[in-house]
Amino acid sequence: MLHEMGKIGALPGGGCCRLALTEEDCRGRDLFVRWCQDAGCDIQIDAAGNVFARRRGRDPSRPAVATGSHLDTQPHAGLFDGIYGVLAGLEVFNTLNDSGIETQAPLEVIVWTNEEGVRFMPPSSGAQVFAGKLPLATLQETPTSESSTVAQDLRRGGYLGAPASLRDHRLQCLLEAHIEQGPILEQEGLTIGVVTGIQAARLFLVEVSGRDGHAGTVPMDQRRDALVGAAEMVAALNALARSGDPQIRLTVGRLDARPNSSSTIAGAVEFHIDLRHPSGIVLDDTQVAIERTIDRIARNAGLTVSVRGTAIMPPVDFDAALVDRVQMASQELQYPWRRMLSGAGHDAGVLAPIVPTAMIFVPCKDGVSHNEAEMADPGDLAAGANVLMHAMLSCAE
Amino acid sequence: MLHEMGKIGALPGGGCCRLALTEEDCRGRDLFVRWCQDAGCDIQIDAAGNVFARRRGRDPSRPAVATGSHLDTQPHAGLFDGIYGVLAGLEVFNTLNDSGIETQAPLEVIVWTNEEGVRFMPPSSGAQVFAGKLPLATLQETPTSESSTVAQDLRRGGYLGAPASLRDHRLQCLLEAHIEQGPILEQEGLTIGVVTGIQAARLFLVEVSGRDGHAGTVPMDQRRDALVGAAEMVAALNALARSGDPQIRLTVGRLDARPNSSSTIAGAVEFHIDLRHPSGIVLDDTQVAIERTIDRIARNAGLTVSVRGTAIMPPVDFDAALVDRVQMASQELQYPWRRMLSGAGHDAGVLAPIVPTAMIFVPCKDGVSHNEAEMADPGDLAAGANVLMHAMLSCAE
Repeated sequence: MLHEMGKIGALPGGGCCRLALTEEDCRGRDLFVRWCQDAGCDIQIDAAGNVFARRRGRDPSRPAVATGSHLDTQPHAGLFDGIYGVLAGLEVFNTLNDSGIETQAPLEVIVWTNEEGVRFMPPSSGAQVFAGKLPLATLQETPTSESSTVAQDLRRGGYLGAPASLRDHRLQCLLEAHIEQGPILEQEGLTIGVVTGIQAARLFLVEVSGRDGHAGTVPMDQRRDALVGAAEMVAALNALARSGDPQIRLTVGRLDARPNSSSTIAGAVEFHIDLRHPSGIVLDDTQVAIERTIDRIARNAGLTVSVRGTAIMPPVDFDAALVDRVQMASQELQYPWRRMLSGAGHDAGVLAPIVPTAMIFVPCKDGVSHNEAEMADPGDLAAGANVLMHAMLSCAE
Repeated sequence: MLHEMGKIGALPGGGCCRLALTEEDCRGRDLFVRWCQDAGCDIQIDAAGNVFARRRGRDPSRPAVATGSHLDTQPHAGLFDGIYGVLAGLEVFNTLNDSGIETQAPLEVIVWTNEEGVRFMPPSSGAQVFAGKLPLATLQETPTSESSTVAQDLRRGGYLGAPASLRDHRLQCLLEAHIEQGPILEQEGLTIGVVTGIQAARLFLVEVSGRDGHAGTVPMDQRRDALVGAAEMVAALNALARSGDPQIRLTVGRLDARPNSSSTIAGAVEFHIDLRHPSGIVLDDTQVAIERTIDRIARNAGLTVSVRGTAIMPPVDFDAALVDRVQMASQELQYPWRRMLSGAGHDAGVLAPIVPTAMIFVPCKDGVSHNEAEMADPGDLAAGANVLMHAMLSCAE
C-alpha cells in the first residue's frame, strides 16, 4: 500500500510530492478512501477536510479508539512520513477483518489535513481545527495559491464536509505510528520507540534590510549587502547550535533574497529559523543568543534586522497510561524497544492536550526524512503496525 | 521624458520594473517610438527587437552616427539606468530640430533589447545578435517564461523585424550616455566621465549539494546542510574580496535553496558569483582563490560542489579618437570631467570590437543604481546630453 500510494505524485528520485490539497493530495485521499470502503469502513469528512474511516464496534455508543496521521508531504518527500501512520491503521483493520475479530469500541483511522504546512500555514492545520485551536473560518479562508483558498480546494477535491470536533465526534484515545525521522533507534539496534512526548519548537522569521546596488560598481566597503549579512547570520547560528547543548536542533531551511538578480547587490533577505529542544529553559537561552548574534552581525554590516517569532510549540507529554500500553504491547511482542522523545512535531502533539494520546516509532534508514531517500525496513514497519494493533485492541476491549 | 517613461511599470518606492519583452517593456518602446515619430524619425526594427530611430542627414549614403542604450530594467530599478542613454539621444534630436540644424550623416538612436539579462539570458542579447556574437535563432528560441519564447514575445509586442547587422545597417560610430552607477564622479565633484573602457567581468554558477533532512531530528553534527555551506561560502567570498585589491567587485546577488522549506534541512543550493576588475591577471588570481575557498568549505562540511563559469567578459577599450571627441566636447562646454573605466557592462561594450565606440557618464546620487532610489541631477543629465550632441555633431559633419 505504501508503494501504491507513493506512485501518486512520484518524483524521479524515488520519492514523492503531494503538497496539501493539491490534485495529487486529493488523489492520494481518494485511494485511501477506496481501500477503507473495501475494508468495510464508514467514511466521514469534516469541514477541515479531515477524513475519519470507522470500523464499527459492538457498542456504537462508545467513543472511537483512533489512530492516524497525514497523507500530504514535503516537496521532496519519501514514501513513509505520515503515510505510514495512516496505512498502518488500515493494515490493522485488514488484519482484524482477516482474523474475524470484532471489538467493543469502534476503531478509526484519521487522515489529518496539511500536517506539513508547506503549501499553506500552519502545520497540522486539520488537527488544530478539530482540537479547537484554529478557527475553522481562518483555515478555510487561507490562500493556497494566487487564485484559491483552502475551502475552494476542499470543495474542488470533494473533501469539504460538516464541522466536527471532539464534542460531537468523540475519541477515547489516539495513537499515531510514525517513522522516527531520526537516527536513534537504528543506531541502538531497536525496533520500537515508545514515544513519551514531543520536544518543544520555536519558529522565527528574520528580515534583513540593506541597500540594492550595482554588482559592478559599488566598492566592497561601501556596500550594505543583505545577502552577505544573512549568510554570516546563517553560518554563525549554525556554529552557535553546534557549540551548545547537543540536543539543540537549529535549522535555516528557507531563505529568499530580493531582488535575487545576479548583477544586483541584494537589498533584502528573509529567512526562517526552526529551533527545537526538549527544554523550555534551553530554548529561552538559545533564543537570547540567536537574537544577540543576529543583532551584532547586522550592526557590523550596516544592516537593519527584525526577528519575529512565528510559532511557539510547547513540549508535549503524552498520556502516561497510553504510553504504558504501547510499551506493554512491545514487550509482549518481544520487540526491542526504548522510551524516547520525538524530535519532530506531529498531529498527535496537537491532540495530546485534549484526548489521551501516544505515539509508536519505527526506525528509518540513516535517520533520513524530508528526503526522497527516506527508507524503512518492511519488518520494522510490520512490527510497528503489530504494536499499534495490540495497543488499540487493549483499549477497545 | 524620463519621468513619463518611469510611469510605465512604476513601483511603489518611486522606481520601476520593465523586464525585457514584458508588456511593460513593450509599452515603454511604444512610447519611445511615438516620441521619435513626433520628432520626424524613421523607425526600423530588427529581428532581435532592436529599434533604430533615424534622423535623416543630407547625405543618405553615409553610415549613421549612432547613440543609444536600453529601456528594459532590473526588477527593482530606478528611472535612469539605460533609459537616460536612449532619451538623451532623443533630446539631441529635439534640440537639433528646434535649432533647425541639419547634419551630413544621418543620426540614430538605438534601443537595444534585453541589456539587463534578468528575465532571460544573456545580458545585452540584442546588441550581441546585431554584433554577430549571438546567433539570432538562439535568441529567438530562448524561453522567456514557461509558455513563451523571445520570438513569440517580440511578435506579440509588435517588435519582430527583419534580421540586421553592421553589414546592411552601417554605423559610423556609436556613443552611449549613461549614469555612472558608481560613486566616483559625485565624490570628486565632476560632471562628465569620459569613459575609456569597461572593466572585465566573470560570472560563475555554484551548485552545492548536501542532504535533505528533518529540521527537528537530525543531530547538528550529522547534517550535510547545503544552505549552511553556501552561507559560509558567501561570507568567506565577501571577506576574500574585501581583503584583496580595492578595485575588486565580488557579488552574490542570487541564491536559491531547495526544497526551501523551513522545516527541512536544505539538500541543495545554487548561487551566482559576479566578479569584476579591470585586470585579467587580478581576475585569474581571484578566481583561483574563490575556487579554493569554496572547495575547502565544501570539504569541511561534507558537501559536494561544482563551480562553473557562465560568462567571461574581457576588458573593453573604447575607440581612442572617439574618446578624444567626448573629452573635447566636455572641455569646450567647460564641464569638469575625468577619464575613467566603467564598472558596469553596457551595450556599447558589445559593439566596441566592431565599430568605433565610446561612452559618456554623468554622476548619480550616492553611486546608487539597480535600486528604486537611483537618482541623478537634472543639470548633470542635461550636461551629458550636451556633450553627446557636440560629439555627435563633430562626427556627423
